[in-house]
Amino acid sequence: MDFALPQEFEDIRLRTRAFVERELLPLEADRANFDEHENIRLDRLEEARANARAAGLWAPQSPREFGGMQLPIVAWAAMYEEANRSIFGPVVFNCAAPDDGNMSVLAKVATPAQKERWLRPIVEGRVRSSFAMTEPHPGGGSDPTMIRTRAEKVSGGWKIYGHKWFITGAGEASHFILLARTSDDTRKGLTAFLFHKDQPGWRILRRIAIMGPEEHGGHCEIEFDGLEVADENVLMSVGDGLKMTQIRLGPARLTHCMRWLGLSKRCVEIASAYVSERHAFGKRLADYESIQIKLGELAHAIDIGRLLVMRAAWKLDQGDFARKEVSSAKIHVADTLHLAADTAIQLNGARGYSKDTVLEWIYRYARQARLVDGASEVHKMVLARHVANEGLDYWRWGPK
Amino acid sequence: MDFALPQEFEDIRLRTRAFVERELLPLEADRANFDEHENIRLDRLEEARANARAAGLWAPQSPREFGGMQLPIVAWAAMYEEANRSIFGPVVFNCAAPDDGNMSVLAKVATPAQKERWLRPIVEGRVRSSFAMTEPHPGGGSDPTMIRTRAEKVSGGWKIYGHKWFITGAGEASHFILLARTSDDTRKGLTAFLFHKDQPGWRILRRIAIMGPEEHGGHCEIEFDGLEVADENVLMSVGDGLKMTQIRLGPARLTHCMRWLGLSKRCVEIASAYVSERHAFGKRLADYESIQIKLGELAHAIDIGRLLVMRAAWKLDQGDFARKEVSSAKIHVADTLHLAADTAIQLNGARGYSKDTVLEWIYRYARQARLVDGASEVHKMVLARHVANEGLDYWRWGPK
Amino acid sequence: MDFALPQEFEDIRLRTRAFVERELLPLEADRANFDEHENIRLDRLEEARANARAAGLWAPQSPREFGGMQLPIVAWAAMYEEANRSIFGPVVFNCAAPDDGNMSVLAKVATPAQKERWLRPIVEGRVRSSFAMTEPHPGGGSDPTMIRTRAEKVSGGWKIYGHKWFITGAGEASHFILLARTSDDTRKGLTAFLFHKDQPGWRILRRIAIMGPEEHGGHCEIEFDGLEVADENVLMSVGDGLKMTQIRLGPARLTHCMRWLGLSKRCVEIASAYVSERHAFGKRLADYESIQIKLGELAHAIDIGRLLVMRAAWKLDQGDFARKEVSSAKIHVADTLHLAADTAIQLNGARGYSKDTVLEWIYRYARQARLVDGASEVHKMVLARHVANEGLDYWRWGPK
Amino acid sequence: MDFALPQEFEDIRLRTRAFVERELLPLEADRANFDEHENIRLDRLEEARANARAAGLWAPQSPREFGGMQLPIVAWAAMYEEANRSIFGPVVFNCAAPDDGNMSVLAKVATPAQKERWLRPIVEGRVRSSFAMTEPHPGGGSDPTMIRTRAEKVSGGWKIYGHKWFITGAGEASHFILLARTSDDTRKGLTAFLFHKDQPGWRILRRIAIMGPEEHGGHCEIEFDGLEVADENVLMSVGDGLKMTQIRLGPARLTHCMRWLGLSKRCVEIASAYVSERHAFGKRLADYESIQIKLGELAHAIDIGRLLVMRAAWKLDQGDFARKEVSSAKIHVADTLHLAADTAIQLNGARGYSKDTVLEWIYRYARQARLVDGASEVHKMVLARHVANEGLDYWRWGPK
Repeated sequence: MDFALPQEFEDIRLRTRAFVERELLPLEADRANFDEHENIRLDRLEEARANARAAGLWAPQSPREFGGMQLPIVAWAAMYEEANRSIFGPVVFNCAAPDDGNMSVLAKVATPAQKERWLRPIVEGRVRSSFAMTEPHPGGGSDPTMIRTRAEKVSGGWKIYGHKWFITGAGEASHFILLARTSDDTRKGLTAFLFHKDQPGWRILRRIAIMGPEEHGGHCEIEFDGLEVADENVLMSVGDGLKMTQIRLGPARLTHCMRWLGLSKRCVEIASAYVSERHAFGKRLADYESIQIKLGELAHAIDIGRLLVMRAAWKLDQGDFARKEVSSAKIHVADTLHLAADTAIQLNGARGYSKDTVLEWIYRYARQARLVDGASEVHKMVLARHVANEGLDYWRWGPK
Repeated sequence: MDFALPQEFEDIRLRTRAFVERELLPLEADRANFDEHENIRLDRLEEARANARAAGLWAPQSPREFGGMQLPIVAWAAMYEEANRSIFGPVVFNCAAPDDGNMSVLAKVATPAQKERWLRPIVEGRVRSSFAMTEPHPGGGSDPTMIRTRAEKVSGGWKIYGHKWFITGAGEASHFILLARTSDDTRKGLTAFLFHKDQPGWRILRRIAIMGPEEHGGHCEIEFDGLEVADENVLMSVGDGLKMTQIRLGPARLTHCMRWLGLSKRCVEIASAYVSERHAFGKRLADYESIQIKLGELAHAIDIGRLLVMRAAWKLDQGDFARKEVSSAKIHVADTLHLAADTAIQLNGARGYSKDTVLEWIYRYARQARLVDGASEVHKMVLARHVANEGLDYWRWGPK
Repeated sequence: MDFALPQEFEDIRLRTRAFVERELLPLEADRANFDEHENIRLDRLEEARANARAAGLWAPQSPREFGGMQLPIVAWAAMYEEANRSIFGPVVFNCAAPDDGNMSVLAKVATPAQKERWLRPIVEGRVRSSFAMTEPHPGGGSDPTMIRTRAEKVSGGWKIYGHKWFITGAGEASHFILLARTSDDTRKGLTAFLFHKDQPGWRILRRIAIMGPEEHGGHCEIEFDGLEVADENVLMSVGDGLKMTQIRLGPARLTHCMRWLGLSKRCVEIASAYVSERHAFGKRLADYESIQIKLGELAHAIDIGRLLVMRAAWKLDQGDFARKEVSSAKIHVADTLHLAADTAIQLNGARGYSKDTVLEWIYRYARQARLVDGASEVHKMVLARHVANEGLDYWRWGPK
Repeated sequence: MDFALPQEFEDIRLRTRAFVERELLPLEADRANFDEHENIRLDRLEEARANARAAGLWAPQSPREFGGMQLPIVAWAAMYEEANRSIFGPVVFNCAAPDDGNMSVLAKVATPAQKERWLRPIVEGRVRSSFAMTEPHPGGGSDPTMIRTRAEKVSGGWKIYGHKWFITGAGEASHFILLARTSDDTRKGLTAFLFHKDQPGWRILRRIAIMGPEEHGGHCEIEFDGLEVADENVLMSVGDGLKMTQIRLGPARLTHCMRWLGLSKRCVEIASAYVSERHAFGKRLADYESIQIKLGELAHAIDIGRLLVMRAAWKLDQGDFARKEVSSAKIHVADTLHLAADTAIQLNGARGYSKDTVLEWIYRYARQARLVDGASEVHKMVLARHVANEGLDYWRWGPK
């Protein structure tokens, strides 16, 4: 048992914190640096990314040979959390979704040639990427077995027809990983494909307007009308689509949690500063016992989230899928992020409801946490299945 | 004891429902009818208001002599709830905040001359109004005793200096009720003034950007730099500002609750329709026991909210301030509105997070419910004080 | 709409309160007045019942011709709540379960001869009664369609074989209502029978030890091995068992809620007294803001419970089954009773965990509230079904 | 970072599990083995303790030189949790409160001579011990600065006068640690004394009846009327009473949590077995989605509790007081134990409310968890203070 962070990762954490404090918080404080979708303006992003890369804080999840830091997942946890103290952090350090999940899975399962072509440009920050899985009713949402987008075999490759939506970043992405049905087999019916935005046979129907601030490229509704993908751009083998998804999703879900913890801590930071100054009914807000308790409960929830995330990270580092541990972390941290933003808004009063702080940005963003990459209800069913199957062994220490 | 709605009010309720269904839901379904602040476009509003007035569904809280329906508050409860099944409803029926609170208080405390000048145009829908009380730190937010805006006595009137913010509707309002300090007396230190937008000596510093959709005229930050108000435009007597606020706030808080219940029911309506169609993991969402229970719990919460609101309405109708009853209703219904929007979004999945339904509009709007007109924490302290003072008599039936 | 309690019922309420204060609280304060099952000793009960009857506070639910007060159910609500300020109250005023449910249903559905024989002695306080429905696994618990106890037709009557458990009061009861299967029909397969304890063919296997204090006669496990019941002792018609149960259960569930509200208020009373005296960390507990809020929230929950109960009572008085309203009340009040006892114990600290107050008695007793007469989960499914079937009409005022 | 339990401790865990399964669960299944206070009969305890000691599973917290296992605290966590799968476990393995806290603190702070006299007999299982700190109103409960029991200096020692209550185990203990006031100094006003039950000058006023099952020796109210304690029986130095308490309380609070986790898992075990068999409304309880989710949520809460406890254990092993970590664990696990017992009872229905399982025993016992060794509210204030003082450093990995 060891709950200490190795010194080398602690150093990375502190360097990340210093960078965010110096470079990103001031940037974020000025609305002029935001684009119309409430994200960092692309020109500002270029500059900030260059600085981050120069500071050696870049693509923590990716191989050194392509320019990443190639850290173990426990180190991501420490760095991502600091990175997302600023809402601009993840994309600046090249550890934003969906790029980071894409880089992570490509590093694991792509062929050397595929890595050179599809992975390297993302790691190097030259292109952005997207992951096209979710479909509108009656296609596959939380349940991938309902996926209806079909790939038909043609000579030398595949032709793809179908309909996707909520495809994050599609409006700015050059590289896509796409999931389509290649047979009706329950376990082996899906296949993953790689394609470039300039290929014909697909189009963006609309950028779906959402409640929250938007990733660059938004959340798009997409139509495939005969997109051709060569055999060499099949990722893994035909029929391995679900497997690829599972390999991708463990770390991808967990990095969401890491980022959300960073945002949660930011909420505490803003709230604490405000209650230290503001008075009501004759005393400073910070001196109200009920406000102290709210902040204490929030700190407690964040603390639990960090333990759950770190444990899952460690288990993934042991080579395990850590399904149960990742689900546990996601259920808890998704709720914690909402609690953090909600509490901080309540303590800030009307100011918290305004755009004078980033709290409302985080609050709106937080609402997707219980939905994205598996609704909390689905993850609870995962836990339920484990407890039904494992009994008292549900609670066992150790990697196995 | 009687939990039945008198037939004449039930008729008004049903006519309101029919009007909303026929006129407002279609209007709301088309984004072209929204202004840039996510409210009904002013030209569309004009038409809809004319129709509502023609249908005899207009200004339920206002005297018949000025064109209102002059209903008792229990009847408002029934009508408002139906009105706000559409997010456009309240303003169309001239029962939106802050107009309705202003009309209600003016009808009660203004002199005949003041009513003619300040009230009649609001009831007739010719002008909009605003209520300027809240101040930024270190002024008065939840705690009116901290109000710093000062009125200095000059010959024939007052000169006002100060700073307000989150003044709802100020950007479109012609008539304002303004609260300012006329002495340092704890109970009698505040006075209410009436002024018209065209008077000099004040200006809008900014329209504060907020998380939620905006009332016409937004939430403004305002500076008073010597606004002159004649003595005849003092509302009630000098020193009666707090009293006027209390008279206004009982019904004003309760009409918030009535509207929120309407929105809450709308959320159930949207969610029910969706789960009846959407499938996941092999069955219709509506057939999941856990989803049924969520909808059952939500229906239960709304039901409780309606009892609390109706009881408080009835008590106000008896001439009581109903402080405890109004606080009880507001605490509960503010939470219920969030629960309704949140549950409906979760059941709609990614669609719920998009702007394809009004759910996200309601979700953002709902966040202010625990803040506006007294934070929930403040209302809980009101209940706490009652239980400390009244003991077992806290729970007593009857008007006294 | 009218939320006032008619003066005549208010008078009954005040007389009940005075009686409890004068006669029962002192009795309850002395452990010498308790039997070994933590209920009032039978000899003390005799005296107290005589006084209650003399005071005209007796059997509020029963016909005047047999000696009851024959009040409408809204008046029960007021009286029962005051009665159960003392844990001895209900049985002293002859409004304890299961007697009151039995009296109530017999008054409604029994023949005149049956009333004379089976009802009158209960109302007069000469005998106690019991209701034998629940069966152990694999028989009928929450789900009456699973009932396995069978009545076989014999000449002039029925012979009954089967197994029941958790039959409240069976150890002291003389009169029993028994539910048994007379056919396999889903709706009409059950029949209700009346029998006297001295009839042969049945026996108590054991008095089941439970967590909570016990009603007189305990909760028994019973075996029927050929109990003979004459045709004249069939209650309602053959096949009407489920119907009888539904007629009985509406008021029976609601009187549970009425009593639980009385106990809940008692918890507030004890807690308030303690926090007014006890100091910790330099101030009186009552001056802690978080303690004030807890008491405020508890008062709020009790208040909601009273509205739900009164509305259901009123609806039952209109002749409606009030299924939805009764379920709503029971879900909420069962939780409230736990909250009340739990909060009061927490505020009393170690003392609350001891038997120095009745709080721990109430806490243990409260645990059955979410189980008895339909688990809360089952009642939530009832609400879910209503919302699925009724849509927006779920929330409708009025008797229909 | 390492979340694996070292193999040697895993072996101890598995041996403990096997012992509990083989020796204790059968014992516990027979009410004949219980004493009148619902704990293991003393004669049965003797036998079981002998077997546990023979199996090398004995006094994990105590020095090897006195016969303990002298394990680090992380290993206690693993062993205690298995031990308390049976309600008889802790006392059988000599790791029950208050003995284990007393052994733990004596091993750390007592002089060699004191250890030989006061510690060795407890470790060897020859005597039981007690810790006398808590006082009734107006003395010291949650707040030790309010302690009023006074020690007056006399030649060669001290004379003690005062009043204590809820002194666990006092009725069976031979060795006592007693906290009394030796001056009015805020930090150094308290001193710890050791005394033997046969010394004159004190007496048990009563064994306080409580809601829950009782430790051997119960929870006693005690009077000190001139108890003489020689200077050599002062534990640590005069004025170190608060310090001793803090040294004792860290591990003592944490071992409560370890035991509670064992009980919580037992609740899941009983509930899982029942729902696998019982049917209602046409299907097996285990096949109800809502029941699956309840069990999943419970497993999740227990899992979090184990992480919090293990982290605090590890930090204590690093020599830190781990105040924040222990408070975090206690807040969470106290709630979890209640949730576990409550959920299991609900799933077992009426059976869960009976004494047919140990669930109701655990439920009643669980109620003290939020009170004992600091109410949850007090621990939340500890967290609040840390977050106010540490800001973002509240969440830091590592031992410092």
